[in-house]
Amino acid sequence: MLPVEYLTMAGMAGSAAFAITAVFAAPRGMDLFGISVLAVIAAIGGGTIRDLILDVPVFWSLDLSVIWVALIAGLIATYARRLLSRKEAVALVLYIDGLGASLFSIQAVHKVWDLQFGLPMAPVLLGVVTGIGGGILRDVLTQRPTLLVSRELYAIPILLGCALYSGVLSWAPEHAENAAIAFVALIFLMRSAAITWNIEVPRWLTTGDQLPS
Amino acid sequence: MLPVEYLTMAGMAGSAAFAITAVFAAPRGMDLFGISVLAVIAAIGGGTIRDLILDVPVFWSLDLSVIWVALIAGLIATYARRLLSRKEAVALVLYIDGLGASLFSIQAVHKVWDLQFGLPMAPVLLGVVTGIGGGILRDVLTQRPTLLVSRELYAIPILLGCALYSGVLSWAPEHAENAAIAFVALIFLMRSAAITWNIEVPRWLTTGDQLPS
Amino acid sequence: MLPVEYLTMAGMAGSAAFAITAVFAAPRGMDLFGISVLAVIAAIGGGTIRDLILDVPVFWSLDLSVIWVALIAGLIATYARRLLSRKEAVALVLYIDGLGASLFSIQAVHKVWDLQFGLPMAPVLLGVVTGIGGGILRDVLTQRPTLLVSRELYAIPILLGCALYSGVLSWAPEHAENAAIAFVALIFLMRSAAITWNIEVPRWLTTGDQLPS
Repeated sequence: MLPVEYLTMAGMAGSAAFAITAVFAAPRGMDLFGISVLAVIAAIGGGTIRDLILDVPVFWSLDLSVIWVALIAGLIATYARRLLSRKEAVALVLYIDGLGASLFSIQAVHKVWDLQFGLPMAPVLLGVVTGIGGGILRDVLTQRPTLLVSRELYAIPILLGCALYSGVLSWAPEHAENAAIAFVALIFLMRSAAITWNIEVPRWLTTGDQLPS
Repeated sequence: MLPVEYLTMAGMAGSAAFAITAVFAAPRGMDLFGISVLAVIAAIGGGTIRDLILDVPVFWSLDLSVIWVALIAGLIATYARRLLSRKEAVALVLYIDGLGASLFSIQAVHKVWDLQFGLPMAPVLLGVVTGIGGGILRDVLTQRPTLLVSRELYAIPILLGCALYSGVLSWAPEHAENAAIAFVALIFLMRSAAITWNIEVPRWLTTGDQLPS
Repeated sequence: MLPVEYLTMAGMAGSAAFAITAVFAAPRGMDLFGISVLAVIAAIGGGTIRDLILDVPVFWSLDLSVIWVALIAGLIATYARRLLSRKEAVALVLYIDGLGASLFSIQAVHKVWDLQFGLPMAPVLLGVVTGIGGGILRDVLTQRPTLLVSRELYAIPILLGCALYSGVLSWAPEHAENAAIAFVALIFLMRSAAITWNIEVPRWLTTGDQLPS
C-alpha cells in the first residue's frame, strides 16, 4: 500500500473507534437509532465544529465514507457488546480511539494552517476541538461528565502535540511532514501510556478544592 | 385556501407545538425569559443546525414569523398551563408536535437534495437533525435525558420517512411530490400511534445491558 | 486615552471576567487544560454562535487577543483561587462579568443591524445569544443548571437593553451612539443591582408549578 492508503485506513479505524466509544457511553435501554446518531456525532462532531468555524464545507459532505464507517461500527458494537465488554476489547478500542484523536487533531492543525486562519493560535485551538469535540458532544447528549471535567489524561497530550506542531509550522515549515508523523506518534504514545498504566493528570495541574460558585 | 397556504399553516402549528413542548420541559420556577428562549430554541434549533451545516442563510433570518409564533405560543402556554396540564391538551400538543416534526424533516430532505449536498446520505441525516435537533437542544439546556436516550418511538419514524423519501428522490424523482405527502403522513401516523397506544421501541432494537464505560 | 481605547479595555476586562466565571464553575479536581478550554469557551462562545449564524468570520479569528486574555485570566484565577474565594473578589468578578455582558450584547445588536440581518428581531435575539451564550455553554459542559433555568436576574436586563437599542436603531438612528452608551449603562446598572441586593426574577414572571412532561 502507498503511505496515503495507510493514512486513510488509520483514519477509518479512528472513526470506527470514536463511534464505538459512543456505544460504550450509551445508557442502558437506549435504542439502535439513538446509538447510531450518537456514534455518528462522536465520529464527526469535532471536525464538523471545526469546519463550521472555518466556514469551509463540512468534511463529511465531500466524502460520506466516515458516516458509513461510524454507522457500521456502531451497529456491530451494539450487537457484539458481550464480546466488546471483555477487558482486552475495551482496551483495544481505547488505543485505536487514541490513535484517531492523534491523527485527526494533527491533520486539523495542518488544515487550519493551510487556510491561514487565525495564526498561530486558531490551529492549536481547532486541533484540540477536532480531537475532543465529538467525545464532548457524546457525553453532553448522554448526560455524562465530559472529559473536560475528568482527570483522565486525554486532552493534554493532544494540546501538547498540536502546540508543538504549530510551532514547527511557524518556525521550521520545511520539517512539517516529519513533524506531523512525530507528533501523531507522541500524542498516541502519551495516550497509550495513560491507558496502560491508568495515568491521571498530576494533582498540581488540577483545582484542589471547589471554588465558590 | 391554496395548498401552499395549508402547508404554511401546518408549519406554523408545528412550530407552535415545538415551542409549547419547551414550556412542558421547563423546570419549576423557570422565568418567562428563560422559557421564551427555550421555546424559540426548540422551534428553530434543528433547522438552524441544518442551515449552518449547509452553509446557507438560516431559514428564520429570511422570515421571522416562526420566531413570533414560538414566542407567542410559549407565552400563552406559560400562563394557560392549568388548561394545558389537562390530559387531552397535552395529547393534542404532542400530536401537533408530531405533525411538525414530520413536515419539517421531509421538507429538510427536499432542501438538502435540491442543494445536491452530500447525496444520498446527508439529506437523511439533516432531515433527522431538523426534526429532532430543537428537542435535543431543549433537553440539554434543561438537563433532561434527551430523546436519544429514551425508548419513546419518536426519531425512528422520522428516520424511516426521510430514508424512504431520499430513496424516491434518488430512483423515482418524478414521484417526489406525492411521495413527500405520503411520507409526512407515514411519519405522522407512526408517531400518532406511538402517542395513542404508548408504543415504545421494541426491545430487540435496544441495548439490553449497560456497556462498560 | 481615546474613547475607543476605553472600550477595548472594557471589552478585555469583560472577557477576563467571563473566563474567571468558568474557573468558579469548574468542579473539584478539574485539570488546568479543562479549565483553560472552559475559560476560552465562556469568553468567546456567545460571539462565536452569533458569527456562525451571521455567516461572517468568527470575531476571534481576526484578533486573537481575546483568547490570550481568557487563557491568562483563567490561569491566574486557578492559582489565585484562595484570594478569589474572598467574597469581595467574587463580587468584583460578577460586576465586571455584568459589564462585559452589557457591552458585548449591545455591540452585537449593532453588528447584526449593520449587516441588515433579520431585522428587526435577529439583532435582539443575537444580542442576547452573545451576552449569555458563553455562560450557557460553560454550564452545559460542567453539568450545572444553566442560567436559563435559574431565577437569577441576568438575562432579562440584557433582553431589555437589546430590545430598546434595537428600537432606537429602527426609529431614531440618529441617536444610536448615545443610546448605545445609555443601554450598556442600563443593563450594567440592573445587573449590578441584582448582584448587590440579590434580586431575583419576580414570581409572577415565573412558572409556579412544574408542568406535565
